[in-house]
Amino acid sequence: IVYAGVGKTDIEIIEALDAGVGYFNIESEEELENLIRLAKQQGKITKAALRVNPDVEYKTHAFLKTGKKETKFGVDIERALKVFADYGNNATVNLCAIHVHLGTGGKKIDPYVEAVEKTLPLIDQLRSNGHTIEALDLGGGYGADYESGTVPSAAEYAAGIVPLLKDKNIKLILEPGKSICANAGIMLTRVLYTKQGGRKKFIIVDAGMNDLIRPSLYDAFHFIWPAKVDEKFVPRQREKDLRLDGTEVVDVVGPICEGADFFAKDRA
Amino acid sequence: IVYAGVGKTDIEIIEALDAGVGYFNIESEEELENLIRLAKQQGKITKAALRVNPDVEYKTHAFLKTGKKETKFGVDIERALKVFADYGNNATVNLCAIHVHLGTGGKKIDPYVEAVEKTLPLIDQLRSNGHTIEALDLGGGYGADYESGTVPSAAEYAAGIVPLLKDKNIKLILEPGKSICANAGIMLTRVLYTKQGGRKKFIIVDAGMNDLIRPSLYDAFHFIWPAKVDEKFVPRQREKDLRLDGTEVVDVVGPICEGADFFAKDRA
Repeated sequence: IVYAGVGKTDIEIIEALDAGVGYFNIESEEELENLIRLAKQQGKITKAALRVNPDVEYKTHAFLKTGKKETKFGVDIERALKVFADYGNNATVNLCAIHVHLGTGGKKIDPYVEAVEKTLPLIDQLRSNGHTIEALDLGGGYGADYESGTVPSAAEYAAGIVPLLKDKNIKLILEPGKSICANAGIMLTRVLYTKQGGRKKFIIVDAGMNDLIRPSLYDAFHFIWPAKVDEKFVPRQREKDLRLDGTEVVDVVGPICEGADFFAKDRA
Repeated sequence: IVYAGVGKTDIEIIEALDAGVGYFNIESEEELENLIRLAKQQGKITKAALRVNPDVEYKTHAFLKTGKKETKFGVDIERALKVFADYGNNATVNLCAIHVHLGTGGKKIDPYVEAVEKTLPLIDQLRSNGHTIEALDLGGGYGADYESGTVPSAAEYAAGIVPLLKDKNIKLILEPGKSICANAGIMLTRVLYTKQGGRKKFIIVDAGMNDLIRPSLYDAFHFIWPAKVDEKFVPRQREKDLRLDGTEVVDVVGPICEGADFFAKDRA
């Protein structure tokens, strides 16, 4: 188990120390100092991975990019050497892994390959400086297959990444949670009213942006389907531009007094 | 008291009937039919205001505009005549008022003047068709004075609107809540970590976008100030571009694993 997060509080860190997590993913020197302080105080020894930003271009929503140089996440790759020089021999927190996270929702393997290619020289350098680097956490963010066949398979990721790492004597940690289970999540909501407004038809449901903010925040696409539906309207493929005979184009909106409170616009 | 909202549920409507609200603001024919059904069922008689969209241009964030023709809110002004023709003589729900809401956060009086000018002919027409129109609810959305002196005063609104309405024998309802009390709200948060990331400095606090989403959703500006601060750093004016000697430029961000989880960027 790795414990990731940019703003871990003291109480959370102590609970994680008690639980014996595998690695604390470290985002800044200050956080590492705080972890050392708390571990000493609790009489614990733990392992940590330094999160580095390989400064890789990753095509997704601007809000979902995390691997560029100047983000709130992690430290830049140049700074990593200094962090290891300063804290790499600490007896309380064993800094012995690297964490990389590029963002969420990307649909290409290339940025992961590039990130590994940029990180390996750092790992070599750290090792030649006398540091043990036992693991590389290549993060989460692997795109979920929201629409049929739009994201690479695990085998395709492996084909890109494994050859780069297989002779490096390093443990590879992956966090593919969303790509495995995102499509298992559904939101159930009830239609309250339908309404004609100008040329548009609106379906007003009893769930709002407070229940699912992704459409307004990221312009995210989510399939919307009746709970009870005639067989002929059941789609065989998860296609965004699905057009079935007998459907009409509507906006699906929530009950909140905000124009941002919508789930779909001009959807058939 | 008026009860506004685009997705009123049956339970909420029954509670409002029991509480004896002044007017139900009605957003669609279906909602009105539902109110009539529930009021009959509960043995209640109530008043309602029809929300109409005067199709006025209102300069604010796209998500905050509500008075254009094709929104999930209200009915277009042309449709209002038909709604009154169909439901204006209902004995259970007395449709006897007009509701207009242009959006949130605008800083000009003109759209309100234009909305009244567009709504008055409708009121005249409805009255000559035999309907009683006793009230005009000119909504909320009046801009809050987040920065000193950037929004019109109540007197200025009155100077624009009152002359148009004073001989019309109509009750004017206003909902100026936010403009009165928005600046009374503060969010208290604690700094967890500070961090240098590339050329940027980040202040990581323990509140997140789940506590205050306006910066990421609307790019909203909020003042940020230390809870304890030296007298010389206390601003005398609420100015967005405040630059005080001895401050540095930082990003203030939350603990959530999202690039969208920020409160301020490049703020001194």
